Amino acid sequence: MCQLLGMNGNVPTDICFSFKGFACRGGRTDHHSDGWGIAFFEGQGCRLFLDYLPSATSPIAELVQNYPIKSTNIIAHIRKATQGVTSLANTHPFQRELWGQYWIFAHNGDLKGLPPVSGEHYRPVGNTDSEHAFCLILEQLRQQFAEAPPLPELSRALAEIVRGIAAYGVFNMMLSNGEWLFAHCATKLHYLVRQAPFAVAQLKDEDLSVDFSALTSPDDRVAVIVTEPLTANEAWRAMQPGELLCFRDGLPQPVTV
Amino acid sequence: MCQLLGMNGNVPTDICFSFKGFACRGGRTDHHSDGWGIAFFEGQGCRLFLDYLPSATSPIAELVQNYPIKSTNIIAHIRKATQGVTSLANTHPFQRELWGQYWIFAHNGDLKGLPPVSGEHYRPVGNTDSEHAFCLILEQLRQQFAEAPPLPELSRALAEIVRGIAAYGVFNMMLSNGEWLFAHCATKLHYLVRQAPFAVAQLKDEDLSVDFSALTSPDDRVAVIVTEPLTANEAWRAMQPGELLCFRDGLPQPVTV
Repeated sequence: MCQLLGMNGNVPTDICFSFKGFACRGGRTDHHSDGWGIAFFEGQGCRLFLDYLPSATSPIAELVQNYPIKSTNIIAHIRKATQGVTSLANTHPFQRELWGQYWIFAHNGDLKGLPPVSGEHYRPVGNTDSEHAFCLILEQLRQQFAEAPPLPELSRALAEIVRGIAAYGVFNMMLSNGEWLFAHCATKLHYLVRQAPFAVAQLKDEDLSVDFSALTSPDDRVAVIVTEPLTANEAWRAMQPGELLCFRDGLPQPVTV
Repeated sequence: MCQLLGMNGNVPTDICFSFKGFACRGGRTDHHSDGWGIAFFEGQGCRLFLDYLPSATSPIAELVQNYPIKSTNIIAHIRKATQGVTSLANTHPFQRELWGQYWIFAHNGDLKGLPPVSGEHYRPVGNTDSEHAFCLILEQLRQQFAEAPPLPELSRALAEIVRGIAAYGVFNMMLSNGEWLFAHCATKLHYLVRQAPFAVAQLKDEDLSVDFSALTSPDDRVAVIVTEPLTANEAWRAMQPGELLCFRDGLPQPVTV
């Protein structure tokens, strides 16, 4: 299985600290070494860094750890291949355009027997169950809505689509269009919201701590969502199987069908 | 105006040498400092690096110059904004999926009064004439062909679409799906094909030379396509206004309507 990391905040924030711990799990403190990727939304634009080298040794991962790209929505993924060979085309996150917005998706789990994508608008390039699921989501949304619907309407539609896909296996996933970030927990996903009063956080995977009170303003709010908690001294909340959350401005909102 | 750089070869080749010279033009030896980007195809997959910092000073450009990513199709772009603000969403190259393939596009020039994109399948995210033109290309191809056609058929269709768009202004562009690279010259584009016997090449923009005979096999063949020649001691061929070439395995084929 793979691991997921997401960030959603009300101010552009860099992910250097969290990604340092997360990247260790791609070949050093854990065995997810079949490539990795990270997507940063900046305004309407999106940067996607992909590598099929383990994140613990990838030169691109090193750059990402040290280059503070500030973003309000970030999704990262380290891969332990279950379906599909190790190749760039099979490396998460995946990106497509829908309604004139970039959408980013990453998945942890295993889906079997998914219905084929009609391919009217979207087709997988690689051969993972994950990209297949992403195309199913986009295809169904595109067929239900010619234009971007208001968020409550989108949330309801997405909840139904996600529930449908989750019936085919394990579907922990993150999805973002740069305004919001949806996170679905099938088996394992944790999150926390960092806000004032900020404190010192200590990574679990590396001997590194950061004092967020020195780096933040009192109104900042940032949610971090991850497969396994990244820090030892903060109160991570475990999401429940079947739970879908929509994060916006660092705040989680439950979404139900 | 901007500058374009493309590479197409019969073996995966890195572009470190050419990109070193090209990146200097983004703020050092020339004034194209409104961002830059580069896309590398590897198999069916594609990596796209984007930055709105000038390529001469961007940490990501430094990585790309020193990390030898081997690819058979590469497109790079340094931007001097004419339409659309400097932002990530307006940074070339642009990427979309068509027929289960990633397509990459970059443009140098200025287009005015383009017809709107129907948006049935593709919509621009940013507000450049370039991404608009890319969406027009994809939309028209998608409407003509439900599946990827053979290359000769695709070439004819593309030649017609490109001629249509070129009527709206200056349309130097490069387009690739990872198998081939199309280059269209409106005002300025040069290329050369490096093949045996390989020799020493000397950059124009930086004091750097490389002996390709030490780095290549006798069967290697690589075409480099660029706005302004990159080296001082090689025979670059200037493309003609209105000329469209399809590069495959390092060989250019003229395409006519």
